[in-house]
Amino acid sequence: MAADSPLERLRPLFYPRSIAVVGASNNPFKIGFQSLLAVKSAGFEGPIYPVNPHSEEPIQELQAYPSLGDIPGPVDLVVYAVPDERVLPALRDAAAKGARAGVVFAGGFREVGPDGVKLQEELVAVADSVGMRIIGPNCIGMLNARGKVNATFAAPLSWLPSGGFSMVSQSGGVGTSILSLMADELVGASKFVSIGNRANVEFADLLEYLAEDPDTSVIGLFMEGVDDARRFLTEARHCARIKPIVICSAGYTEKAARTSLSHTGSVASSESVYAGAFHQAGLIRASSVQDLVCTGKALEMARHLAGNGVFISTHTAGPAIIIAEILEKAGVRIPSLSTDVTASIASFIPTHAHSDNPLDMFAHAWTDGSLYLRSTDLALGQEDIHCAVAVFASGVGAGPAFPAAEYAEIGRKHGKPVFLCLLGPSALNQEMATAQAAGVCTYNTPEKLAQALSHLTHWAESREERG
Amino acid sequence: MAADSPLERLRPLFYPRSIAVVGASNNPFKIGFQSLLAVKSAGFEGPIYPVNPHSEEPIQELQAYPSLGDIPGPVDLVVYAVPDERVLPALRDAAAKGARAGVVFAGGFREVGPDGVKLQEELVAVADSVGMRIIGPNCIGMLNARGKVNATFAAPLSWLPSGGFSMVSQSGGVGTSILSLMADELVGASKFVSIGNRANVEFADLLEYLAEDPDTSVIGLFMEGVDDARRFLTEARHCARIKPIVICSAGYTEKAARTSLSHTGSVASSESVYAGAFHQAGLIRASSVQDLVCTGKALEMARHLAGNGVFISTHTAGPAIIIAEILEKAGVRIPSLSTDVTASIASFIPTHAHSDNPLDMFAHAWTDGSLYLRSTDLALGQEDIHCAVAVFASGVGAGPAFPAAEYAEIGRKHGKPVFLCLLGPSALNQEMATAQAAGVCTYNTPEKLAQALSHLTHWAESREERG
Repeated sequence: MAADSPLERLRPLFYPRSIAVVGASNNPFKIGFQSLLAVKSAGFEGPIYPVNPHSEEPIQELQAYPSLGDIPGPVDLVVYAVPDERVLPALRDAAAKGARAGVVFAGGFREVGPDGVKLQEELVAVADSVGMRIIGPNCIGMLNARGKVNATFAAPLSWLPSGGFSMVSQSGGVGTSILSLMADELVGASKFVSIGNRANVEFADLLEYLAEDPDTSVIGLFMEGVDDARRFLTEARHCARIKPIVICSAGYTEKAARTSLSHTGSVASSESVYAGAFHQAGLIRASSVQDLVCTGKALEMARHLAGNGVFISTHTAGPAIIIAEILEKAGVRIPSLSTDVTASIASFIPTHAHSDNPLDMFAHAWTDGSLYLRSTDLALGQEDIHCAVAVFASGVGAGPAFPAAEYAEIGRKHGKPVFLCLLGPSALNQEMATAQAAGVCTYNTPEKLAQALSHLTHWAESREERG
Repeated sequence: MAADSPLERLRPLFYPRSIAVVGASNNPFKIGFQSLLAVKSAGFEGPIYPVNPHSEEPIQELQAYPSLGDIPGPVDLVVYAVPDERVLPALRDAAAKGARAGVVFAGGFREVGPDGVKLQEELVAVADSVGMRIIGPNCIGMLNARGKVNATFAAPLSWLPSGGFSMVSQSGGVGTSILSLMADELVGASKFVSIGNRANVEFADLLEYLAEDPDTSVIGLFMEGVDDARRFLTEARHCARIKPIVICSAGYTEKAARTSLSHTGSVASSESVYAGAFHQAGLIRASSVQDLVCTGKALEMARHLAGNGVFISTHTAGPAIIIAEILEKAGVRIPSLSTDVTASIASFIPTHAHSDNPLDMFAHAWTDGSLYLRSTDLALGQEDIHCAVAVFASGVGAGPAFPAAEYAEIGRKHGKPVFLCLLGPSALNQEMATAQAAGVCTYNTPEKLAQALSHLTHWAESREERG
């Protein structure tokens, strides 16, 4: 692979051979404690070097060094868990040491006005002079499941399920919200980057990387504005031809825009201009961070959707009605069943149920989950039906369980994705975990499922159109 | 209180002196097991009578009776945990015994066609002949926190936090989703009724009751259609003048409506007709079950909102930008701070922060939560600011915690509600539980908070207009 290929350029960031944590600490109230703990908790397999001028003792049971220059081996990635005024001196040490990438958490740079702009310019000058890539400043860091890298200050993020969803967030706070929802929704994560002030790593650089990254199948973006919209849109358009991109953006009203301006140093312009440009570039626009995460999950688990026909089965009509309504409004089809399929389904559902789509099998299907399996198998055999949705009230351990493994198997047999709306409290989501592990894309409200499936269908259709 | 007052008419249902469970069982795979367990788990203080013709032994350690007629004392409420064909005989026994209310879970009535319509008519005739009120059939039952009644088949529902939110759902499945979200959002519950086929208890009857119920401060409705829209709208209009009502409805598109028709025997008509009628009646229309529950929480915790001015403070701009944008689009104001307040806040926030609304205090406020308290105290002193929103990334035990108790206290001092957007995974929501117990209305995504606050503000404004 060429040394200047996109994958090579960011390799020291995502796949470092060693990691140093500047400001590492044994004091759990310091960010340098949490940061080192995070690096350790991900199971990183290379050397980890705590750096702290005041520490003679080991830090978190690892040998510590007074400065980056004292580390015996080579250093690829440096995590700067220190306040703004200590970043630049450490960065100069890192450049001298030959470090190739960095993550800077501290604020106090471009977002705070002229003095901060100057400080950030100095930081970029040092980094660029040695070809060092910097995530941040003013960010919550980055993750890479495959590389076992957790360069944030939150160890629990090491526990996210791993998968193909990669996320780039301009805001650290929104990034926190997205990571929390990813944990709740059990979305398989590949890479996560909080880019903050974007010293010398931009949205466009990451899109270039993620487009080629074999571990990334779906990309999510949260954006408040870009400095180089032309380059971003060019990369996004290119990338969206290869992999689906879901975007959530904000900062278009007066007070919102003013807050954005004092934030990462960007200002979003008119919403309609952005909306048009995103659509043109083939991006999927999410209506909320929740929609972003739920749609990301659908794309991660079910992007091989081949058309816009949905079969819906349920034991309880209400949630199916909500789902059908959202899908119909979004132009997703709920095809009538063929005469053959209708007759076959009628032979085993309760006599008073209608063999129809949506299919309501009443409480019989709650106590006998095989009704879902038989009806879904028949419906997915119909050519104009491209995926299945089942609705089931979780028994949360005290009632029947949905036959998720068999349902997933039927989906695989037909090569068509299967979805489950599993009604139950998120505090008891072991059942969701089990269903998703089997390959069933699962949501706990009808609206989340229907909105995500609408986005997925539109994306599948536009992919068809683009050829 | 007059014997025919709304509160008296449904008293045997919500405050029975005794409860019998027909079909009670020791077999955990039977609904009669779960149903009796639910009644017991709520801590009901009157006698509980298991009824089962095949049981000589105690059931779940309670003395069992072969039939309702064999019970020695009077019976107020009968829970029918038996299949459709066994409901009518048991109901006749109940009528003879002098029972005054019932809950029928079984389907197989009006929703299944002509035979079921006839069966339901017979059921209503028996009930009406002795003035017995029936919830269902084809439902998941009812709850009353104050009366310690859990007449569902889900014992965990006894653990919902108690409060002033009462909910009536036509669909049992959507009711399950709403109850799950109420548990996730920690909404204080008063009454919950899944009305199903509405034998002889309609939406209008429950609105009449809940309007006068001293334990209900906010009402939520999920509706697919009503048979007597005129009476419903009359009651709703009356009730909405006393207490806020949030409504979520569905079933307006073709396939959705067809499913609704085969469901509880109702069909919703055109969406715009309903939307107009709901608005006229003063109802708040929620966009999803999640919005219904989140708005219900805001109304339950913060309905004394006196105007439409919001102060927003944060340590991370992104989520505040999302909140500001949704509020501004909804016409909610984010007033500029007065010269005095601006100067006072500027004296203690970081030098590079702007003393503004929204107020971004950067990471300083994450490590020093007192910045939230001081700025909120000053902002709430300003006349055109009527509530406060704080944004905080949960440290989930490993980082700083938001000073919720002190923040709530400042809200109480000014007589203005306070909200918190606490970014973190719902699986670790102890922090939300603590904040809400202190009186802070808390959400885990910016959109949930902003949408609920928008509804609340509109409701407060329309209340002003109605006088």
